[in-house]
Amino acid sequence: MYHFFVDKSQIGKDRITITGSDYNHIKNVLRMPRGEEVSVSDGESDDEYRCRVADYTDDSVILDVEFIKKSDVELPAKVYLFQGLPKADKMELIIQKCVELGIYEIVPVAMARSVVKLDGKKAASKVARWNEISRAAAKQSKRAVVPQVSDVISYKEALKKAEELDIVLVPYEMCEETTSKEAFIEASKAKSVGIFIGPEGGFDKTEIDKAMEMGGRNVTLGRRILRTETAGMVALSYLNFLMEIMA
Amino acid sequence: MYHFFVDKSQIGKDRITITGSDYNHIKNVLRMPRGEEVSVSDGESDDEYRCRVADYTDDSVILDVEFIKKSDVELPAKVYLFQGLPKADKMELIIQKCVELGIYEIVPVAMARSVVKLDGKKAASKVARWNEISRAAAKQSKRAVVPQVSDVISYKEALKKAEELDIVLVPYEMCEETTSKEAFIEASKAKSVGIFIGPEGGFDKTEIDKAMEMGGRNVTLGRRILRTETAGMVALSYLNFLMEIMA
Repeated sequence: MYHFFVDKSQIGKDRITITGSDYNHIKNVLRMPRGEEVSVSDGESDDEYRCRVADYTDDSVILDVEFIKKSDVELPAKVYLFQGLPKADKMELIIQKCVELGIYEIVPVAMARSVVKLDGKKAASKVARWNEISRAAAKQSKRAVVPQVSDVISYKEALKKAEELDIVLVPYEMCEETTSKEAFIEASKAKSVGIFIGPEGGFDKTEIDKAMEMGGRNVTLGRRILRTETAGMVALSYLNFLMEIMA
Repeated sequence: MYHFFVDKSQIGKDRITITGSDYNHIKNVLRMPRGEEVSVSDGESDDEYRCRVADYTDDSVILDVEFIKKSDVELPAKVYLFQGLPKADKMELIIQKCVELGIYEIVPVAMARSVVKLDGKKAASKVARWNEISRAAAKQSKRAVVPQVSDVISYKEALKKAEELDIVLVPYEMCEETTSKEAFIEASKAKSVGIFIGPEGGFDKTEIDKAMEMGGRNVTLGRRILRTETAGMVALSYLNFLMEIMA
């Protein structure tokens, strides 16, 4: 069954209207016959609308809502990835994979060792592109929510944002396995979790110190050295495992 | 500290000789002074040789072996990924990430729904390229072992190879979480584990049946739909977590 995101304003009591590129996709590419089942969500709430194609107009598809269910694909916690800006197009892979794995929001952070510096205009177009990738990945994974990729922020701003969360995990080499286990288990029971990932060169020492002062928890992700684009998805996989398989 | 792989024949009692492209890299790119510490392994055993640069000749670097330790970066089990041949260059991402996460061997399998068909000559050059990627990823992650990417085999051959392993996990949608938990925990205590991943279109029904007949264990990887290139690394992450963090 195909899944689509629409704006809240397109959702009526019994009918949903799909316009724009999804209209074109449904009518001319998928050529869906009347009666075909699709699922729809507004990208913000976890309501999933199960519908059938009712009719086509010149610029829209009209769907009949059959029933509404709570989507069961969202993680029980809101997980935020604070990703140190990586080089090249690694951010695209990070977004795609973390959206598949249930991330709630991705926060690109300009860290001390980030090689890439993004300024105003360039940053805005990057962030727009990253949000498109998130939306496409959310559609493919049939997520109820489209995870937001926020603007690029400074480390100081990241700490301030992270402070609001129940627990913040800071993967860092040479960390004790025992305390890591405890931190992951605690995170798997929290309502909001932050994951801090350094860029290619890792965290700067003062960044680690500040994360610890803020209450961050050092964790290990295992005994091998992971690349920056792998670390976030692995930490998120560990939470997936605890929240969905071990629960 | 940089890590290098050498052939067993290059390892002497107290000295190791590095030749070829690594020689060029050490001498002309890294410009390592005498006395610099490096680690070396033969790519097959988990012996890690801690050495110092002793001398340069016209075509080799001579290292003094200071001590030998057992590498602690290998997983306690040999984990084999049986990957249904995916499209395009996805296999490269799969290899890179699974090597980072401690895979022991990657087995590309021509499955019923694999769109890509690889024949003799094309297959050989692909497999050679994939092994190069494995070697580079192993070096970066300072693995003791270079995971082999085997030749592309048929599903029947994959089953035969998998039969020798202690436990085989078969991620498949709509599987019970309870039995998944048990299977993952059992796998985390085994000496050899297989992970079967279908291609983009998923497993064919008869493939699943045959995997079950062979003793494979159905598991879920969570509630979201994962792409073929994500599923293997997520299953392997779950094993990492159990073997290294929860242990």
